[in-house]
Amino acid sequence: MSSAALSNGYAAPEMAVLCRYAALYGEVQQSRLHRSLPLPSVLGTSFHVVDGPPSSAAGDPDEIAKLFPNLFGQPSAKLVPSASSACATKDQKALKIGVVLSGGQAPGGHNVISGIFDYLQERASGSALYGFRGGPAGIMKCKYVELSSEFIHPYRNQGGFDMLRSGRDKIETPEQFKQAEETVKKLDLDGLVVIGGDDSNTNACLLAENFRAKNMKTRVIGCPKTIDGDLKCKEVPISFGFDTACKIYAELIGNVMVDCRSSGKYYHFVRLMGRAASHITLECALQTHPNITIVGEEVAAKKLTLKNVTDYITDIICKRSEIGYNYGVILIPEGLIDFVPEVQHLISELNEILAHDVVDEAGMWKKKLQSQSKELFEFLPQEIQKQLLLERDPHGNVQVAKIETERMLIEMVETELEKRRKEGSYGGKFIGRSHFFGYEGRCGLPTDFDANYCYALGHAAGALLHSGKTGLICSVGNLSASVDEWTVGGTALTSLMVVERRHGKFKPVIKKALVELEGAPFKKFASMRDGWALKNRYVNPGPIQFVGPTAKAVNHTLMLELGVEN
Amino acid sequence: MSSAALSNGYAAPEMAVLCRYAALYGEVQQSRLHRSLPLPSVLGTSFHVVDGPPSSAAGDPDEIAKLFPNLFGQPSAKLVPSASSACATKDQKALKIGVVLSGGQAPGGHNVISGIFDYLQERASGSALYGFRGGPAGIMKCKYVELSSEFIHPYRNQGGFDMLRSGRDKIETPEQFKQAEETVKKLDLDGLVVIGGDDSNTNACLLAENFRAKNMKTRVIGCPKTIDGDLKCKEVPISFGFDTACKIYAELIGNVMVDCRSSGKYYHFVRLMGRAASHITLECALQTHPNITIVGEEVAAKKLTLKNVTDYITDIICKRSEIGYNYGVILIPEGLIDFVPEVQHLISELNEILAHDVVDEAGMWKKKLQSQSKELFEFLPQEIQKQLLLERDPHGNVQVAKIETERMLIEMVETELEKRRKEGSYGGKFIGRSHFFGYEGRCGLPTDFDANYCYALGHAAGALLHSGKTGLICSVGNLSASVDEWTVGGTALTSLMVVERRHGKFKPVIKKALVELEGAPFKKFASMRDGWALKNRYVNPGPIQFVGPTAKAVNHTLMLELGVEN
Repeated sequence: MSSAALSNGYAAPEMAVLCRYAALYGEVQQSRLHRSLPLPSVLGTSFHVVDGPPSSAAGDPDEIAKLFPNLFGQPSAKLVPSASSACATKDQKALKIGVVLSGGQAPGGHNVISGIFDYLQERASGSALYGFRGGPAGIMKCKYVELSSEFIHPYRNQGGFDMLRSGRDKIETPEQFKQAEETVKKLDLDGLVVIGGDDSNTNACLLAENFRAKNMKTRVIGCPKTIDGDLKCKEVPISFGFDTACKIYAELIGNVMVDCRSSGKYYHFVRLMGRAASHITLECALQTHPNITIVGEEVAAKKLTLKNVTDYITDIICKRSEIGYNYGVILIPEGLIDFVPEVQHLISELNEILAHDVVDEAGMWKKKLQSQSKELFEFLPQEIQKQLLLERDPHGNVQVAKIETERMLIEMVETELEKRRKEGSYGGKFIGRSHFFGYEGRCGLPTDFDANYCYALGHAAGALLHSGKTGLICSVGNLSASVDEWTVGGTALTSLMVVERRHGKFKPVIKKALVELEGAPFKKFASMRDGWALKNRYVNPGPIQFVGPTAKAVNHTLMLELGVEN
Repeated sequence: MSSAALSNGYAAPEMAVLCRYAALYGEVQQSRLHRSLPLPSVLGTSFHVVDGPPSSAAGDPDEIAKLFPNLFGQPSAKLVPSASSACATKDQKALKIGVVLSGGQAPGGHNVISGIFDYLQERASGSALYGFRGGPAGIMKCKYVELSSEFIHPYRNQGGFDMLRSGRDKIETPEQFKQAEETVKKLDLDGLVVIGGDDSNTNACLLAENFRAKNMKTRVIGCPKTIDGDLKCKEVPISFGFDTACKIYAELIGNVMVDCRSSGKYYHFVRLMGRAASHITLECALQTHPNITIVGEEVAAKKLTLKNVTDYITDIICKRSEIGYNYGVILIPEGLIDFVPEVQHLISELNEILAHDVVDEAGMWKKKLQSQSKELFEFLPQEIQKQLLLERDPHGNVQVAKIETERMLIEMVETELEKRRKEGSYGGKFIGRSHFFGYEGRCGLPTDFDANYCYALGHAAGALLHSGKTGLICSVGNLSASVDEWTVGGTALTSLMVVERRHGKFKPVIKKALVELEGAPFKKFASMRDGWALKNRYVNPGPIQFVGPTAKAVNHTLMLELGVEN
């Protein structure tokens, strides 16, 4: 690899282009723009791709095998340095590649694209890289831009997905598959890189299967993206964006903690992104040491009710009040409600009732609820009751996602505290303050870790397509070592899959990586939370630093899972 | 000044204490803890205090003179290097000083205290510094801690007011004044430093007047604190905390902007702190270039109605939709509603009606509203109407402060857009998302500017008390130069005052520094906003960096007001 590419490959004419952007770039953005990206050493040598043993599935292997007859069982792939430089020549085959950003934004997406681009420039000169605009819809509508060095450069090391924009469309129906086929044929694509979360990578695998079944030359490689951190497995230790997002949220939580300790009069209820999994909440807890942290997976495993969760919070608030603390910080995952089994029952009963019956003001309709659901409904704050009954989605379903869990919990805790006050078991003061940290963290400037990881993922995607692989997800490993020691390869997407029965049909899905209650991050948290509850052990991590010792810091979740931290 | 003090004066035993804290300090916190604080060069020499010409008041000088017979007209004071070192000896008089943090938190408060402490250590050896706990209540109840080097060190360069905590009590009644007198007598205080906003500094001046009137030796010096930035004048160019808070908010706004441009589907309505003045909103606009910014002072000056504001926003949304942008970012000051004259009328009419009449469901009570107020009430979203009628403070008054302006505006804009859609003049998509950035910014790690400024303010307070001054507010000037060239002194608090008539009595108040529509910051903003509205000129400043070129950056408002930036 030439030194030009290692230093991000700015040539003089490109600098002129950058100057146009510089006027709108803050100094920090600019300094990030010019940061060189290190690469795993294997990518700086001649390498070849070595296959591992055949793979299976995360569950239901027979069903997955039937759904992916052409791809099931593919081995993982790993880049290893070649003894001779013979392969280097073979490398120089020009490729036509498409890339798409799919789903919610995550810091680092631009560097994946930069990584693919630089790989092609360096290893497959004469190649073309097309960026599909607006997510998967761009593939179906054949809306794309041919990416040039000029086009890409202003986005290097920058947050957001604004280079191409993203979208949440899926390529699902036969008609949509046909549109995708037409696009890749029209552009004569050798490969397609799908940068997305679990759903998007499932989609990538279905496309790969479809193209192969039809003997088309287009191969498909996935890339693990999601700030939620729920797309991972042994060979794909982390999804990109999680590191940056958690650090941004932890900065804010840390600030709120200091504020809270300074004024001594508020309980801050902080809801954090993560609908299906509580990794963000857990990581932020490990970074900041809040008084109370609710982990959805634990709520589900222990089959807790909302009353249980409310009591857990209220108990700690009462104990804290006795030792003079009428303030605190509480972290709640966005998806908490989805983890409470009784809420699921209530919602499905409500959907059924609302679809067929009239909701009478006198409340006679409630008699149709099962007793547990009725009890839960009565326990909910009035505002939430109203919301459940009145605000429904276009399919007439109750909109659980619209419930602001942090505000709901404040109300429920308030009610419980008032009860205890009347009983004489609580004599403190309680003022709740609600926060939702979401959009603030999805598009921050990527940390060094995310920037480097994504750049390596992009190279991995390029190398896998270059060697003719399909249906793999990029895997970059050995992440606790320095970047040059990182391993680069790919893992069969089918090996991450299970089947779900939906509408009477088997549907393949990538198994969500939830917080494991026996995993190192949760166990560490669980061993410390009682101390954090009553003693104030707040840590204020401060803003992400791009220079200095903390620039190299990596999130606790990854380091604990890798066994490097304990 | 010895090199030990210049490097923050850590001696070996103190380091042992710090180690206890280190376990709970993130690496960035720790690196800030050990940061040396530069001082204006005059504080490194022998100096004496020179008086300027006599002062007047910001308004109503005759009334202010009557209210402060002992203090009115005091000259400003300035530290100048002494020709000989004769003064250095005279300096060495030991002092007993109290310090209090008053009102809302602002980044840098701890450094003011560190500055006072270090000044006394260096210049008045044998002195004692007492920190009153929990704000002004600590003075009245004589709750304090004697500050030691060990006690203070863990808070150096850290955010928050948690060293002593703050409080919002005022020392107002004769009884309370008496309590304060008893405390300062008991502690034999030579001086008291009040770190606070406009109200707290008014209070400081009343205390100073009272102590002098009674021939007590205790002198009182104020320090300009408030993230809102509304306590400033020519000699006090900025209040501390504003710089850090704005940069934290701007980081978040920048992230939301990139998110917004990436997904292309949301309008983000961001409410920012600042109830009485819109400085934070204006500064954040200058840092990030949002599509729409509402400045409360402009709304008041132009006597805009809520309907006008809604139309202004809606017009831009419609124009943006025509050029393909169905997304954007809108900044709103917390105090917007207070700036709208018609809202003030409605509120006072409502308070009157609610105090005497029954609010009938049929709405007959509305007939008591004047026509303009009735029209406004009908224009408000139902939720807000309910809130105004139902949620009242302990005095029965409508709680304007509880209205979440950003959510209210989203509803009003939505309604207006629907109207235009039916009329055929709007064909876009609108989804609003609300944010309130408040607590996140009040306790962040202080920027270099705030850290240095506060440390200098603390030294100024020490020097002013040391030279026998009272009733002054610390003023550190020449802030566009490097720290060693900063000027140090004090300004008569009475010179910042005007009178307000409350309950038939004249009350002295420090005149709030509002956004001046003829001032450089607003004029710069006004010259650029039309471009920002339709073209997307978003700037993402990124997180505060403590190392590198941006570590030295200072907010635009100050630089524009000083004429250094244009």
